[in-house]
This record gives sequence, structure tokens and C-alpha cells, in this order.
Amino acid sequence: MINQNMYALGANRSCIRELFEYGRQRAAIVGPENVFDYSLGNPSIPAPAGVNEAIHGVLREMDSLAVHGYTSAPGDLPLRAAVADDLNARYGAHVRPQDLFIGCGAAPELVSVIRALAVEHSEFIAVAPFFPEYRPFVESSGGKLVVVPADIPNFQIDFAALEAALNANTQAVILNSPNNPAGTVYTAETLRKLAALLDAKSAEFGKRIYIISDEPYRELVYGGVTAPWIPGIYDHTLVCYSWSKSLSLPGERIGYVYVAETCADHDALYAAVAGAARAGGHVCAPSLMQKVIARCVSLRPDLEAYDANRRLLSEALSSYGYEMAKPDGAFYLFVKAPGGSAAAFSEQAKRHDLLLVPGDDFGCPEYFRICYCVSRDLIERSLPLFEKLIRE
Amino acid sequence: MINQNMYALGANRSCIRELFEYGRQRAAIVGPENVFDYSLGNPSIPAPAGVNEAIHGVLREMDSLAVHGYTSAPGDLPLRAAVADDLNARYGAHVRPQDLFIGCGAAPELVSVIRALAVEHSEFIAVAPFFPEYRPFVESSGGKLVVVPADIPNFQIDFAALEAALNANTQAVILNSPNNPAGTVYTAETLRKLAALLDAKSAEFGKRIYIISDEPYRELVYGGVTAPWIPGIYDHTLVCYSWSKSLSLPGERIGYVYVAETCADHDALYAAVAGAARAGGHVCAPSLMQKVIARCVSLRPDLEAYDANRRLLSEALSSYGYEMAKPDGAFYLFVKAPGGSAAAFSEQAKRHDLLLVPGDDFGCPEYFRICYCVSRDLIERSLPLFEKLIRE
Repeated sequence: MINQNMYALGANRSCIRELFEYGRQRAAIVGPENVFDYSLGNPSIPAPAGVNEAIHGVLREMDSLAVHGYTSAPGDLPLRAAVADDLNARYGAHVRPQDLFIGCGAAPELVSVIRALAVEHSEFIAVAPFFPEYRPFVESSGGKLVVVPADIPNFQIDFAALEAALNANTQAVILNSPNNPAGTVYTAETLRKLAALLDAKSAEFGKRIYIISDEPYRELVYGGVTAPWIPGIYDHTLVCYSWSKSLSLPGERIGYVYVAETCADHDALYAAVAGAARAGGHVCAPSLMQKVIARCVSLRPDLEAYDANRRLLSEALSSYGYEMAKPDGAFYLFVKAPGGSAAAFSEQAKRHDLLLVPGDDFGCPEYFRICYCVSRDLIERSLPLFEKLIRE
Repeated sequence: MINQNMYALGANRSCIRELFEYGRQRAAIVGPENVFDYSLGNPSIPAPAGVNEAIHGVLREMDSLAVHGYTSAPGDLPLRAAVADDLNARYGAHVRPQDLFIGCGAAPELVSVIRALAVEHSEFIAVAPFFPEYRPFVESSGGKLVVVPADIPNFQIDFAALEAALNANTQAVILNSPNNPAGTVYTAETLRKLAALLDAKSAEFGKRIYIISDEPYRELVYGGVTAPWIPGIYDHTLVCYSWSKSLSLPGERIGYVYVAETCADHDALYAAVAGAARAGGHVCAPSLMQKVIARCVSLRPDLEAYDANRRLLSEALSSYGYEMAKPDGAFYLFVKAPGGSAAAFSEQAKRHDLLLVPGDDFGCPEYFRICYCVSRDLIERSLPLFEKLIRE
């Protein structure tokens, strides 16, 4: 008498976690230096020094009850005000503190937003390649996940396929740019075209279709590329943000939901997001970290190491003949599998202790993902393997 | 097109939060010293000094990526091992690290456990008085909350009423001892009688009924009373624990689910709890705090201030003629409303800026709750009001 869906989610690890655990087992046998683990998107750049300084400062300057006590459910007002000011300064946005709900990272924030929008027969669209956890988030909320096939090889949006997927049950399109796993960034042109399509379809169906923008990688962009501020392009946008990647704090579980003031039914929507969080057991985001982040909102990551890895890998792999998505953001390369099947190629690579995640769960079975948030040394020593594999 | 249940949960604040916000507004008008706010169970004893020392120690001794990086979803193994050792030493228990799932506080842990056990037509029993959030936790999981009326004036369990409530759809009985709002502690005798009843009924219905033990107040007991270790009395117990109260860290959101090895279907149940957490967006509990708590599991709260408040208030109120539940634990007094209606009495008290939570939402409309985690000075200055109110 146990819920079988929950059991299945707990018993079946994701393909990524499976591969990561395999890597740890192999490391115990052959030595960690001989396992080339590109499986997990765990930041390899430490948090900016300002973060730990802020922790010490908060502990020194504030009293324990204030530091570690409950905050209001939507989060400390000083933090929300600091985030609003930062976004407004960077994007010319119009964010108000009361549009922000401080959450425990992008994952639970996405769940709250999806549950707020989950009504009978509701459909949520993911554009491949997409983060596989969207599926349990949507399905456990009673919704249906509809996948729009990837726009290969550009990894923008296949608008014909998207248009065919939209219908009167569509509640939202989930975007993830910079993208995990593709490392691509949607251009302003793509986003404007998307906004026009969603406006037209919302009018046609007599209901508003929202964008849910999952953006933990917003600041991780390279070579002069920028990730456009999506609420500035489409009024009806909810942003799920996390400081996991921008401040290298993935374990600390803190981020925010931004419900743009311009969203249709803004107030009810914000209330429903808060209500869904409450139903999921949200009380507040970690309180010490709320105080710390309030002092760190203007810190930006030092991307030099990621960028150097990105260039080293993408240039070397291209020179061997690999094709890949344009690596403009996040810390992923998405590479076309020689032979056409990423699962087969990953199996082959695994025999050399080179761990690559096949794109099947991301909705792109011809591509594999490389997380380049690893040491430069590991990359350099793995290059001969990549060269060997494409020749085999 | 917004989920109306989620909207209602977000738009309608709990009675407690409502009263707390009212108190803040009044404080702005009449001065904080003139508002006698007994509404919110926010610890008033600071975290033990060892906690902040542990934070500094972790930051000094460990590298940033390890401190702030993802942990595994069930939590760092050193923390789980430390918790298991501590529980085994204190209770002669048989806790294994793999029976523990480090969560983000009792609320989301309860949600995960309830969802793991929520199957078609499932019922969860709460024994009044009970924490009001059990209702959204159960109902948003598709279950039905069945309330067993309070055992007045002892606040143990009305076994005739409980037996009548049990049926083949009952998945679990939710216990909360030391109790919020009653401040009472279930005796070993009560718990043994409960275990015998649940064993008999499980046999009768051909299915196992679990206990979900919500125990954030486990260490907050006074006058030589102890809270029995429930898994030692009933094999099929899941514990939801939090360090919110025992270490005065309510905002930090960290605790654990313990699935006793002796639970029927232990492995599937543990997997389902993990799966439900995953569906709710759990990635890991806050990572720095995992390291900190691993160094603090044997710290106990200094309860002297709470105990002094408890004695001062309960003795004074008794001398005025108030009747109340025996205040053995947590930081609550649960007092019988003169006149019989706690709602009416609370309204009357509110006119004097004395903020008391009526027991209606706890399933006990004749009693009101006093949170005595406040300053001694506030208590002393409020006593004349209590005396005046019972005479009116």
C-alpha cells in the first residue's frame, strides 16, 4: 500500500546519477585520476570569496535569533528588495519586491509554479533538449508534459513543431536558456518570435499561455553572448532562478520565483505559487543564506576557468571531426554522437572510463552531454580518448 | 486558469500568521512593548554557541566546493552516521544511516511521507489538537484527513474515538508529541496501548497501518518528563524530525525522516519517501548546515528560560482560575477559554493587544494556545490582563 509512482521515482535513479555512481565505483578500482567523469553539472569554480565573507559578517553583526529564525514565507524583504534593484539595474526591468518569492532552488520553485498552473487536462510544453526532471514535476502535479522536438543543429525553437503542440489545454511553455544540456542560448529574435506566437495562440484559445523560464545558468554565458531578459520580451513570464550556479552554491538551495507584474492574473498567480509552495511544505528559504545573498546579489561568477575549458574542449573535438551545438552558455557541450546513437557511443566511451551522458532523457538521443565543469588536467588527459573514439 | 486549491492556500493565511501580522501592525501604532504577542512558535532561546562555532569551523577547514556543493539526495553520509549514533546511544535504538533521509525540515518531510503513503482512497488520522498544516499536506496529496477528537482534559488519546476512525483505508496515524498546541507528551502507556490497537487493526484489515511521528519538539520537555522513542514501541513508525526547535534553527530548514528498519515494506517505503521528495523538487538539504549539524548532533538546548516561563505562566494562570493541559513539553500552554469559546475569548483579549491563538484550527475550539517562547518581561506585564479577562 505504497504510492507506486513515488516508489518508481525513488527506486529508479536518473541516468545521470547512475553514471555518476558508476564513476565513483570505477574510481575506487582504477584510481580517480583514471576516470574521466563528465557526468554531473556540479560547479567546479568555488563560490566567490565574498560569500564566505558575508557568512562571517552576518554571524558577527546579527543576533542568532534573527539569523537563524523563520523569515516570512516569501522571504526577507531586504533580500527581495536587493534582488529587485539588481534586476532593474541590469535589465531596465520593473521588478517589485512583492513579485518575488524566495524559494529553495530552481527545482522546488518549478514545482510550485507548475502546481499553481496545474488544472484539469493541463499541458506543459518542454522544448527538447530539456531537463529530465520536468517530467516528474509535471506528472506528479497531474499535468501532461508535451515535448517539442529539438531544432537540430541550431538548438533554437522549431516553431512549426511548437505551433502544432499548442492547444487550448496548454498552460505554459517551459524554457531553459542557457540550456542544460545543449549549452545554447535563445536569441532575442527567437524569443520575440515565441512571444508573438504565444500572444496569437492565447488570443485564439481565449486563455493566457505563460512562459516558465528556468534560468539557473543566466549569468553563465561566454564570448560576448548575453541571455535576454525574457519578461522584457513576453509579459506573461514566470522566472525560476537559483544561485546554485552563479554563486557556486548548488547545495545551499536558494533562489527565487519572479512573477512579472505584467502577467495575466498576476495577484492570483502569485498567491497560487505561494499556496503550492505551502502545500509542498515550504516554510521559508534557508534563513542564514537569505541574509548572505542579500549582501551578494551583485557578485558575478568568475567564468574564466569554465570559458577556458569550453574553448579547449570544443576546439579539440571540432578538430577531431565532432559536431556540436554552439556552446554559448551554461557549462555543457552537446555533441552529436558519431554513428548516430548517443547511448551506443556512451557505452563505448564507458569502456575507456570516459563518462558521457547520452541525450535520450533530454529528448535528443543522437547527442551526448559533456559537463565541462571539471579540471583542465582531466580534459587534457581525456582528449586522446575522444580522438580515438571517433576513429573507431 | 489557475489551480484554485493552491490559490486558496496562498490567499488565505493561517489564523496564526494573520494574528502575528496584526500584532506587527499594532506594534507600529502602540509600540512593540504594548503588544503581548503569544501567537508564534518562533524559538526565543538563541542557537547554542556551538552552532556558530561549527559554521566558522566548517568554513575554515573545508574547501568551498565541498561545503556548498550538492550532497546526495538522502544527505551526507557523515551526518546520517552521526544522527544514527546519537539516537542509538540515547534510546538504545537500531538506527542505520541508510534508514535516514536528511530533509528540509519537518514540513516538507511530512509531505514526502504522506505522499509516499497516499494511494487511492487513503485516509490519514490526526489526533486533535493537531498542527493545522496537516490538512493541506494530506489533501494536496489526494488523501483524506480524519480527525479524532481531543481527549479532554488529559490530551492523551481517546481510544474509543480512534478505534471508530480506523478502517481499511487508514494508511497512517499522525502523532505530534510533545504536542503543538497542547504542550502535552504522550506517555509510554498511551503509546503501548496505541501500538496494540494498531497491530490488532492492521491484522483485522490485512494491511499495515503506520505511525507518522512528527517530533520537532522531542527534546523540549520539562520537570523530568521524557518523550518516549516511538519506533521502540511500534515497529511501523516513520519519524519526521527537525532541528528547528532543539537547536533554535527554525529558518535553516533541516531535519530528517527516519524509516525504521522494522517498518513493513521498509525498502519500498524508503524509496517512495525519496521519490516523493524528488517529485517535490528536493535535491538535497542545505549543504553547509549538513556539515554543521554533523558537528552538533549531541548538543542539547538550554531549556531554562522556557521552563521558567512555563512555570511562571502556568502557576499564575492557575491561580487566577484558568484550567489548562498539563504543560510538559514544547513551548505551549493550551488553556480552556473562560466562557467556552476560544474564538470569542481571543477576540476579547485582542482588544487589550493580548494575542492568543484560538484552538479552532487545531480541532479544539474551547481552548486557546499561548506560545511562551517570549521574554519574561512580556509575560510579567501581561499577567494583570489575564487576571482581568477571567474576571470580566
